[in-house]
Amino acid sequence: MKPINRRGFLAASALAGPLAEFAASQTAPPAGAPAPADPEVTRILARYVVAARREDVPAAVRKEGTRTLLNWVGCAVGGSRHETLDAAIGALGPFSGPAQATVLGRKERLDALHAALMNGISSHIFDFDDTHPRTIVHPAGPVVSALLAFSEYRPVSGADFLHALILGVEVECRIANSVYPEHYDIGWHITGTVGPFGAAAAVGKLLGLSETQMAWALGLAAVQPVGLREMFGSMTKSFHAGRAAQNGFTAALLASRNFTSSVQGIEALRGWARVVSTAHKFGEITNGLGDHFEISTNTYKPFPCGIVIHPAIDACLQLRAQPGLDPRQVERVELRVNPLVLELTGKKTPQSGLDGKFSVYHAVAAALAFGRVGEPQFSDQTVRDPAVIALRERVTAVVDPAIAQDQVRVAIILKDGSRLEKSIEHAVGSEKNPMTDAQLEAKFSGLAEGILTPDRARKLMDLCWSIEKLPQASQVAVGAAG
Amino acid sequence: MKPINRRGFLAASALAGPLAEFAASQTAPPAGAPAPADPEVTRILARYVVAARREDVPAAVRKEGTRTLLNWVGCAVGGSRHETLDAAIGALGPFSGPAQATVLGRKERLDALHAALMNGISSHIFDFDDTHPRTIVHPAGPVVSALLAFSEYRPVSGADFLHALILGVEVECRIANSVYPEHYDIGWHITGTVGPFGAAAAVGKLLGLSETQMAWALGLAAVQPVGLREMFGSMTKSFHAGRAAQNGFTAALLASRNFTSSVQGIEALRGWARVVSTAHKFGEITNGLGDHFEISTNTYKPFPCGIVIHPAIDACLQLRAQPGLDPRQVERVELRVNPLVLELTGKKTPQSGLDGKFSVYHAVAAALAFGRVGEPQFSDQTVRDPAVIALRERVTAVVDPAIAQDQVRVAIILKDGSRLEKSIEHAVGSEKNPMTDAQLEAKFSGLAEGILTPDRARKLMDLCWSIEKLPQASQVAVGAAG
Repeated sequence: MKPINRRGFLAASALAGPLAEFAASQTAPPAGAPAPADPEVTRILARYVVAARREDVPAAVRKEGTRTLLNWVGCAVGGSRHETLDAAIGALGPFSGPAQATVLGRKERLDALHAALMNGISSHIFDFDDTHPRTIVHPAGPVVSALLAFSEYRPVSGADFLHALILGVEVECRIANSVYPEHYDIGWHITGTVGPFGAAAAVGKLLGLSETQMAWALGLAAVQPVGLREMFGSMTKSFHAGRAAQNGFTAALLASRNFTSSVQGIEALRGWARVVSTAHKFGEITNGLGDHFEISTNTYKPFPCGIVIHPAIDACLQLRAQPGLDPRQVERVELRVNPLVLELTGKKTPQSGLDGKFSVYHAVAAALAFGRVGEPQFSDQTVRDPAVIALRERVTAVVDPAIAQDQVRVAIILKDGSRLEKSIEHAVGSEKNPMTDAQLEAKFSGLAEGILTPDRARKLMDLCWSIEKLPQASQVAVGAAG
Repeated sequence: MKPINRRGFLAASALAGPLAEFAASQTAPPAGAPAPADPEVTRILARYVVAARREDVPAAVRKEGTRTLLNWVGCAVGGSRHETLDAAIGALGPFSGPAQATVLGRKERLDALHAALMNGISSHIFDFDDTHPRTIVHPAGPVVSALLAFSEYRPVSGADFLHALILGVEVECRIANSVYPEHYDIGWHITGTVGPFGAAAAVGKLLGLSETQMAWALGLAAVQPVGLREMFGSMTKSFHAGRAAQNGFTAALLASRNFTSSVQGIEALRGWARVVSTAHKFGEITNGLGDHFEISTNTYKPFPCGIVIHPAIDACLQLRAQPGLDPRQVERVELRVNPLVLELTGKKTPQSGLDGKFSVYHAVAAALAFGRVGEPQFSDQTVRDPAVIALRERVTAVVDPAIAQDQVRVAIILKDGSRLEKSIEHAVGSEKNPMTDAQLEAKFSGLAEGILTPDRARKLMDLCWSIEKLPQASQVAVGAAG
């Protein structure tokens, strides 16, 4: 019995109520599938988002939401002049609607859906955005990109905006928790596949969707996953984050007009979770809603390169900051590192800026030479700088399985024979050693350099910090225009 | 060793050349994955599409492409006034760009990407569009929706348009062949998941993409699959076809601006085929390119309901056409049907128009009452029509496993005791009994009724039939404006 014989009957449009059940009953479950005894995951989640009140969100959670916003804005501004964004705007700009929303860091204004796409791309270009440690989702890209563009389309207070941001992150990270790691191991880029749910929930909250509409919005998000890990290393990776924002935003808009979908999009036998993953834990989605918030665990990268290299950079920056240390006096640098460091970043003679991100030797040399490690330290020019190369050639590394992934031991031997040492137990930006507000500001300033004046960057950070007090969340977007 | 430790290094943007390979090498294959000895499927397909010449396409293939176009235009016009499209345009219209392209059957003009979305939705609303029998893909929705909107954005001759249509269908159906049925069985709505490839290839052909750009376009299509079978019975099902068109169109536009992607998006270890399916046959994609054309097997539905019911409708329409048959003289109708007919469409007392699509009794009664079976015969009004109900109650059916799915035996006993019989060996519209051009025209006319005047419908069909001769393919779109 082939599906073709059954198809037409399942396909009739606008099936509702008992008929929808009838149609569903026509679809035989896959071999070995469990009985559909799961709770109404989608409805439970929709109900929570619709009913959630911002006054029930603890201050510490709202603070982390604010930090998430600030970090995301910095990343989006920082990526805004990259050729990736030039290409995307060049390709899709001719199809943009009214100039409703800001492309951060640029002069162009696009319709809100395209702005969400572009800002999501921009914020992920340097892979410098936030990370939900348990699932390696980048939560802000899909959610904040959609929300901020929406806030320029329809007025929303800063307090409501922040609440929606927290809820959107909650939804995407809970759904990620339910399928991680199996879903990621299959090859999906999880940020792009759970992102549409987060964006749909966040925008849907601001649109005031009913519970059923919110469930439809989640269903419309479920049918629009984006992203394969195969694309890592190409521009398409950052497209995933932006398209996820645009897709979720679209889902919420459609649902608000009663564009119907399944109300069991996540948990159904042929719903999202079973189709895109080999395992699922629906309790991760439904248990303890409102009791804890996933955004509380959000982390921010201090350096625009893979995190295994971060402990060594952290140590070298701290040593460099010691009074009197002159990089020209360095005789040699000895690193004791987790084995993964050389496996992933063992390039001794990087040739380009991007190559430099795969070289712990370069990263350490740049940290000592400049006293900071931002995107400029991974430029072609810096990687080819004779002074940096000279330092790089004095760096040696040995692996030690006893060194954890957020640890490192560094010794600097100066030409006068003196020795400086630094051990890092938990690198800055790791879960156990989060970036301080001041460090987030320094990162932001570095990203905005050359794009916004220092004065405008300062004002933009202040807008982010005060998001809860802003009459209009869109002030943040306007303040970030290039 | 958790993926989180590896992630950042794979994520650096704009990786190219040897670095891309380095990054790929950091990604451990999933447990038990085969060695990556597959041919360069994506590149082979891209090369074929880029090099293909329209003069190498046989006339019979071009004819089937023309029939595909005509059928699709009729379906898109027919669905254009449905509440599904009202909702979609209401939700997304405010974000549309310049009025570049026609929404078939309506007054609205939208930017070409949104027009592709809306026409794709419209053409699938009644589930009355074409079917690739081997995979139950609806080939035209994604491909023609994108192409026709593109043709209004940038001039393209009818001959080039038809060639791109044939190539787009080739690409999507070959990719579908490679993963069917496993991919469909998992729960994906295959039209929406392979559709972006077809739309990307078709639009990319007209954009004159290079081989590498075409491979990127396919990669960008690979990361944007749309559609879960869970959504069957809701408006979201037709959204799948439209969004697939829009996504593939977007992929081609981005690639044309050198927005980079993987050139192994289909076959890579973490590429599309392995991520969305439990099995794949890459030879289905690469073997015999240009030797045969998938569009040659395309089929068209004569009736807007599931195909198991089609043999009975076919028989009754033929009986009804016999001179002197008066439906009021029918004493009873006896059907001998394949078992699936009653399993799927055994509703004795349907309550609504949609319900009627699940009732062989209603379908047969409507065929005898009206002498035609189109969307009006599945309206609420028709299903509740006392004359139709009276006929319906005179229909009985028995199942017979010896009756194949495209067969039926029908006997009508008249009040005067006389008996009319009809056996159908292959129902009209099945692979072995394709709809004639005249039948396609009748279907088209029925769909256009009430939307276009008969004169305009006639002219629009003529435009479709003469597509190869048209200086501008966009004439078809303009001719279909509401």
